[in-house]
Amino acid sequence: MVYLTRREHFNGAHRLFNPDWTEEQNDEVFGKCANKNWHGHNFDVFVTVKGEPNPDTGFIMNAHELAKIMKREIVERLDHKNFNMDVPELKGVLPSTENVVKQIWKWIAPHITTCQLHCIKLVETENIYVEYYGETS
Amino acid sequence: MVYLTRREHFNGAHRLFNPDWTEEQNDEVFGKCANKNWHGHNFDVFVTVKGEPNPDTGFIMNAHELAKIMKREIVERLDHKNFNMDVPELKGVLPSTENVVKQIWKWIAPHITTCQLHCIKLVETENIYVEYYGETS
Amino acid sequence: MVYLTRREHFNGAHRLFNPDWTEEQNDEVFGKCANKNWHGHNFDVFVTVKGEPNPDTGFIMNAHELAKIMKREIVERLDHKNFNMDVPELKGVLPSTENVVKQIWKWIAPHITTCQLHCIKLVETENIYVEYYGETS
Amino acid sequence: MVYLTRREHFNGAHRLFNPDWTEEQNDEVFGKCANKNWHGHNFDVFVTVKGEPNPDTGFIMNAHELAKIMKREIVERLDHKNFNMDVPELKGVLPSTENVVKQIWKWIAPHITTCQLHCIKLVETENIYVEYYGETS
Amino acid sequence: MVYLTRREHFNGAHRLFNPDWTEEQNDEVFGKCANKNWHGHNFDVFVTVKGEPNPDTGFIMNAHELAKIMKREIVERLDHKNFNMDVPELKGVLPSTENVVKQIWKWIAPHITTCQLHCIKLVETENIYVEYYGETS
Amino acid sequence: MVYLTRREHFNGAHRLFNPDWTEEQNDEVFGKCANKNWHGHNFDVFVTVKGEPNPDTGFIMNAHELAKIMKREIVERLDHKNFNMDVPELKGVLPSTENVVKQIWKWIAPHITTCQLHCIKLVETENIYVEYYGETS
Repeated sequence: MVYLTRREHFNGAHRLFNPDWTEEQNDEVFGKCANKNWHGHNFDVFVTVKGEPNPDTGFIMNAHELAKIMKREIVERLDHKNFNMDVPELKGVLPSTENVVKQIWKWIAPHITTCQLHCIKLVETENIYVEYYGETS
Repeated sequence: MVYLTRREHFNGAHRLFNPDWTEEQNDEVFGKCANKNWHGHNFDVFVTVKGEPNPDTGFIMNAHELAKIMKREIVERLDHKNFNMDVPELKGVLPSTENVVKQIWKWIAPHITTCQLHCIKLVETENIYVEYYGETS
Repeated sequence: MVYLTRREHFNGAHRLFNPDWTEEQNDEVFGKCANKNWHGHNFDVFVTVKGEPNPDTGFIMNAHELAKIMKREIVERLDHKNFNMDVPELKGVLPSTENVVKQIWKWIAPHITTCQLHCIKLVETENIYVEYYGETS
Repeated sequence: MVYLTRREHFNGAHRLFNPDWTEEQNDEVFGKCANKNWHGHNFDVFVTVKGEPNPDTGFIMNAHELAKIMKREIVERLDHKNFNMDVPELKGVLPSTENVVKQIWKWIAPHITTCQLHCIKLVETENIYVEYYGETS
Repeated sequence: MVYLTRREHFNGAHRLFNPDWTEEQNDEVFGKCANKNWHGHNFDVFVTVKGEPNPDTGFIMNAHELAKIMKREIVERLDHKNFNMDVPELKGVLPSTENVVKQIWKWIAPHITTCQLHCIKLVETENIYVEYYGETS
Repeated sequence: MVYLTRREHFNGAHRLFNPDWTEEQNDEVFGKCANKNWHGHNFDVFVTVKGEPNPDTGFIMNAHELAKIMKREIVERLDHKNFNMDVPELKGVLPSTENVVKQIWKWIAPHITTCQLHCIKLVETENIYVEYYGETS
């Protein structure tokens, strides 16, 4: 089995705050990330699929096809968006990097049909990233 | 003369739109950057100073001192902020990267007293950055 | 004056050899770069323009417009191409990184009309790059 | 068990096409990668070995020894080469990154004798890479 | 389960040599790393934890809390230090990157209480890094 | 004129302290950099030369030749060395990055004969670097 990874980029704004908490509780837990006027990041997203190379193409999956799926399912939904306000699937969810990566898995998984989805990695800054391997991991 | 450069980071949200224009004009010029719910970036800022190394220290300027100035004058003002709403000096200014870099020069210049401020570089994404060398350049 | 830089990528194959020389001379000067079956690189190209930000937009030049020019004038001509065989403007020229960067300047310069073209930087590997500032530099 | 990874570089030219297909089929599947005059990349290759540190040296394996093996077994065979024409072990194989990484495993595995070969990672561009953990993974 | 990774930096000096060996044996095995006047590196350390995001915060673990632990347990102990002389826990141990990563695990593990410590990665140069997953891996 | 830049690496140990000062003065100015047991860094050094491409080779200067000069004049002198103790030309000099870059210029300049030496850039960490353009800049 060989693992193939493709990277795409997007940037967005978000705010971390729990509406059931006081402002003080939000400040204590989320610090500057709770700023009510939003802040944002450049995100790198890496999708890894795994499988056996097809003898006719040498590919596990055509990387251009994977790029198209990532652009349509991730970039078009999140790029230059406000994760709290502009993304229906994130309504009512704290848009932490952890929760966003799980939602990205749900968007991508149905479209990986000729090999297996292995991992989604979401890089928030050069110092912080999260990885998700699906429900069964 | 030797040039010394120090990097710091911050992230913020902004929106590019001209209030004197129609929504269509804003969309045509600014595209996704005009999204009314904001978007954001991780920014890297590089400050370059120049001078002769001091024989007692070997330094043009103590890099820890430069870091302190950058944290106080740039990071505390812009980090996790909305450039359109949270930054008094940018009120009424289109917060393009070009205009932000010129404002950063104004904040930094008065504090570089033992050598010369040479350049401010502001990196918006891995594909776009701006540089400013002051009025006389 | 503010300087704005935009990056694009392409990859291609080339071979460095001087047809007026013997194989030995070519090997001595160009080493592995003279391999008759070609070799290749991922190239990063950075275009820098300079000017005053337009008060209506905050831009020296719209970075999306600059990206379009770079894709049309550089990427479409060089990406996944053989620089010795597939690029009419490089016919009869040794496709060294130095000569390619000068050709890129010729392609880009006529399309920078609202501000000034300042520099083209072409990165061949993480260890080697060239920069060109035009005829007058 | 500790995992040790060493990186080396090489660059080469290749072409992706299936000789049993028409030109149209090749274009449809491989796009620009089928260009008959070749294209190329800078590749980064990472070899990961695992084991217990030797109490006399603190090493799983001497990283300088690993570098020597990688230079001899990978770099000398692939650097500045045409993967379709210059590499006997890739003759008749589609030189996709997936197939090249499997061949690199075959070259490296016999020389890792004092600890275990764990993974080969081959980075084709900043946006695409593959990983291989051997037959049993 | 989601995996969260945080990076911190430090730099230090060390020397690799085995006091039970002759100078010749040390030179043969450790080469320039045995230089009796020390050498040093900039290190990047990545700590990965895993768990289920807390529904109240969206976090596996607050990344700011993880940063605080890493600064206190790793950076304060190793930054601008001589690993052979200044670090009590490394006395009598060959301060190879492999042995340092295992010591870092011992410092960090007791402080990860609300989720699980998964991996410590220690990057010595852009070409060499080690990873450790604990005793049970 | 075209500018060509080549990168090389080395790592070393140093200590910043002024022997004419008290320990307190040294601590105040140099902080952790004054640690008497040394600390170290991975350094990247970039040498930039400028000139007109030679019509026979397409080169300003053969990058392999430049690499050889850099390895002999910089890497062999500084790699895995203690800058305070092992480098005769730095004896009695505070081995700040500023002073080291000026010394590197002196080593390199005599060997750039067919084009002009333009700049030496020395990167100490991902956050700090210095540049030197020679006496006349």
